[in-house]
Amino acid sequence: FQGGFGSPAANDPMWGYFTAIAGQDGEVDAEELQRCLTQAGFTGSYNPFSLETCRIMIAMLDRDFTGKMGFNEFKELFTALNGWKQNFMMFDQDRSGTVEPHEMSQAINAMGYRISPQALNVIIKRYNKGGRIYFDDYVACCVKLRALTDNFRRRDTMQQGAVSFRYDDFIVCTMSV
Amino acid sequence: FQGGFGSPAANDPMWGYFTAIAGQDGEVDAEELQRCLTQAGFTGSYNPFSLETCRIMIAMLDRDFTGKMGFNEFKELFTALNGWKQNFMMFDQDRSGTVEPHEMSQAINAMGYRISPQALNVIIKRYNKGGRIYFDDYVACCVKLRALTDNFRRRDTMQQGAVSFRYDDFIVCTMSV
Ligand SMILES: [Ca+2]
Ligand SMILES: [Ca+2]
Ligand SMILES: [Ca+2]
Repeated sequence: FQGGFGSPAANDPMWGYFTAIAGQDGEVDAEELQRCLTQAGFTGSYNPFSLETCRIMIAMLDRDFTGKMGFNEFKELFTALNGWKQNFMMFDQDRSGTVEPHEMSQAINAMGYRISPQALNVIIKRYNKGGRIYFDDYVACCVKLRALTDNFRRRDTMQQGAVSFRYDDFIVCTMSV
Repeated sequence: FQGGFGSPAANDPMWGYFTAIAGQDGEVDAEELQRCLTQAGFTGSYNPFSLETCRIMIAMLDRDFTGKMGFNEFKELFTALNGWKQNFMMFDQDRSGTVEPHEMSQAINAMGYRISPQALNVIIKRYNKGGRIYFDDYVACCVKLRALTDNFRRRDTMQQGAVSFRYDDFIVCTMSV
């Protein structure tokens, strides 16, 4: 673990906040992240994030597979979370804490993903509860969609929109989130 | 929806049980499945399944993407669940409700999956809590591993151990569970 006196991180206004949350090991795990997002009131009037969603948030950024986040990942996550929250609130106009399936498809389009009606249908079936999508599930969906898309693009070096996966690599890419 | 008087399903001893759980729509959704598994005491001294795990159990078998299970899927799920439970209990010898990471790797091998140490590491990082794997997370892992492997194999028609995925198909395969 790096950082410390005089490093660029130490001059960052978020650094003190990060170190307080991270505790002795200097990294943030899923329980610490859940506590921090709940205490910070990040979800506002929405239900707090489930531990499950916090785990996949970390998995998304955890490229060295330690199950924890360093400072840069922590900041990267907050940037992503703010974007997803803004996006969600744009569609949850009545602040019910849920969006409807057809709004979900607009939200996914607004994030720049171009997916087929079948893929959209799969996503909505997976993430709805009683026909509605709650903020926690919405974020879980965004995390997975981003991580899977990143994994795909990293392998699609010729940008052909197609990737040949060996079985083991497919499992690594898809079981991590 | 099929079944009814004189059909093979109606003569099946599990049919009455299924219809009682399924309710009026004749299919089992995630909430109904959770209630049924809890009331049946399926998890025994282990914690009941989370709704999240019940949702992916249904997603695994839900090939028409209705978010619900018919009778045949219901029976298929019970067969799979019994296998996973036996497998888990074989490694959880002290009945603590958890297995250790190295036992997890033996369990995955025992189920017939051949994956690399890196893939194993990814799986353990994703599904452990405090360094241990609980039964609920174990089953969630088994469900995903089975669904992803099935999706992969269905496309690997020449059995070459490699599949070329277009982006949209990759998302359909991986976001459904
Ligand atoms: Ca920590
Ligand atoms: Ca709403
Ligand atoms: Ca039902």
